[in-house]
Amino acid sequence: MALSHVRILGSGLIGSSIGLALVQKGVAVSVVDPDPRAQALAVDLLNSAPVGDPDLVIVASPISAVTQAISSQNNASVKLGFMDISSVKTKVKVDVAKSGLSPDRFLPTHPMAGREVGGAQSARADLFQSRPWIVDSEGVKPDLLAAGFEVIELLGGIPIEMDSPSHDRAVALVSHLPQLIASLLAGQLEGAAQSDLELAGSGLRDTVRIAGSNPSLWKEIIAANSGAITPLLQAFIEGAQELLRNLEDEDFIAKVIASGQRGRNLIPGKHGGQQRSYTYLPIVIEDKPGQLAALFDECAAAQVNVEDLTIEHSPGQFTGLITLALSEDGAKSLAAHLQEKGWSVHQPR
Amino acid sequence: MALSHVRILGSGLIGSSIGLALVQKGVAVSVVDPDPRAQALAVDLLNSAPVGDPDLVIVASPISAVTQAISSQNNASVKLGFMDISSVKTKVKVDVAKSGLSPDRFLPTHPMAGREVGGAQSARADLFQSRPWIVDSEGVKPDLLAAGFEVIELLGGIPIEMDSPSHDRAVALVSHLPQLIASLLAGQLEGAAQSDLELAGSGLRDTVRIAGSNPSLWKEIIAANSGAITPLLQAFIEGAQELLRNLEDEDFIAKVIASGQRGRNLIPGKHGGQQRSYTYLPIVIEDKPGQLAALFDECAAAQVNVEDLTIEHSPGQFTGLITLALSEDGAKSLAAHLQEKGWSVHQPR
Repeated sequence: MALSHVRILGSGLIGSSIGLALVQKGVAVSVVDPDPRAQALAVDLLNSAPVGDPDLVIVASPISAVTQAISSQNNASVKLGFMDISSVKTKVKVDVAKSGLSPDRFLPTHPMAGREVGGAQSARADLFQSRPWIVDSEGVKPDLLAAGFEVIELLGGIPIEMDSPSHDRAVALVSHLPQLIASLLAGQLEGAAQSDLELAGSGLRDTVRIAGSNPSLWKEIIAANSGAITPLLQAFIEGAQELLRNLEDEDFIAKVIASGQRGRNLIPGKHGGQQRSYTYLPIVIEDKPGQLAALFDECAAAQVNVEDLTIEHSPGQFTGLITLALSEDGAKSLAAHLQEKGWSVHQPR
Repeated sequence: MALSHVRILGSGLIGSSIGLALVQKGVAVSVVDPDPRAQALAVDLLNSAPVGDPDLVIVASPISAVTQAISSQNNASVKLGFMDISSVKTKVKVDVAKSGLSPDRFLPTHPMAGREVGGAQSARADLFQSRPWIVDSEGVKPDLLAAGFEVIELLGGIPIEMDSPSHDRAVALVSHLPQLIASLLAGQLEGAAQSDLELAGSGLRDTVRIAGSNPSLWKEIIAANSGAITPLLQAFIEGAQELLRNLEDEDFIAKVIASGQRGRNLIPGKHGGQQRSYTYLPIVIEDKPGQLAALFDECAAAQVNVEDLTIEHSPGQFTGLITLALSEDGAKSLAAHLQEKGWSVHQPR
């Protein structure tokens, strides 16, 4: 069947991104969130107002709220059943089985997509594009399973069937261990002299990027999957201890760095969120009120649509670097326009 | 004096990037590399052919080759002296002092810039733009020191005076420890099932990006700075062990993640210096030309300075979410102004 009404419980990053993508594909979406402000933002973003009962309910709540969210719905009025998107599968499956929902009406899934920022305000309809989306199909009713696959296909995800214990072991390695290591490393920066931290470059920033993740979400994920994480964290600690004992031995250090190189090279390339191809136009502006408005007025005058932008300020400098993401033609015509008007435009790349 | 001829010993990433930038600024640059192929590539890239003796020699060799590189030059023919760019300063200073070069003819420096890829082929003239560049000026002849500052200024770097032990402690924290942790983590991926690694997302990829670094360069850096790294690696291991013992305790896990968040937020962002604290105002706009200009005109009309902004939208979507970073007062008055004008403004956070 083609889905006509999907209800999403939870308007965080994942729930809102699923909603945006489904609406774009012509599926009506209702959103329910216990936080009225979060719900209002999501409803406004989605701009969809379905009536009647949902075909499918997607539970996009924190792990601890999954069974409660399911209970909040009139189970009988949901045509096909429920699917979830939690980061840990075994615990959620056990919780749901205990809650009284018939197990064949619950499809455990996990889209391998996310960002270190949360909330509807960070939602993107293309978040799942070309991303793996785990499905544990064991004992699930065929019509619910088919609906789950339909959602994944509509969102551009790549469905991968995997039982819940295998899923939990895999994400412990590729997601939960890296999260903990990044958080521990970033935690070491607390108490450091600000003058030392000012020497940090993109290497440190990238290494601890995911340390920005939400503690209340992650405490549940880690605790729910502690069994699979434990041996990995143990092995990491043993490796670190051996390195500590050999910190003056160049051959040993080279082996550790080389092993890391090999491990890194095993990660499949960028098959995440479809790469968009933009031309980037750097413009140096004075860092003062009105400069951005003036720049965007020029963009409007040149009839160029800005797809994205970044602002970089240098420490203690009174200029900022704006990089506009544009179409190739847009970059050309805007560069010419801005140069004529006396702006400090640099070579597009 | 204005530098007219700079010789660079070593044509790796840093040496070639310095060369490119100097040539761009009109300084003639000669390059010497023990590897004739590397030298040929660098010479070709730089396209500069100075004659006569250099004013200044920049040693851009691996740590172990610094004194040898200096000895390879006719010391007396170098007008001002030598400066190096090594990642560890105390050991290099001691090595050079032993080598017989008068200490006042050697300027220890370290540009805090790099990439996980090496070689002249990865060189970029803008590598040092707005990046800190450490200078240990202790006991250095004024004319050599002035030349060092001139190089840094020409390359757009930000000179920071710091004694060598302080430098070594700082980089142990912001550079060497992260390198080791990223390498150890990436090393854990060796032997993993390819099907598990296919679930990896940008979080893992960013966390281990610097694990791609060169083992033969890094074994020297780590060993040369093992004294400063040891207590940091020890503290990291202790933190990891404590976490391992509390892997089912949600409160403990939340503390670790929250500590990581705080640590990450201490890293100076795009604004350099200290993090400013902003109020974030989400606004849903139609994704069409002119909308941003109209929004910034409203900001100017409301006399509110936009400190930063992000644009989130998905390809093919007809709405976009702009989040403006503002002062708290600015957010309040702009929100009121925009609501009055009919914009779709959401709760600031």
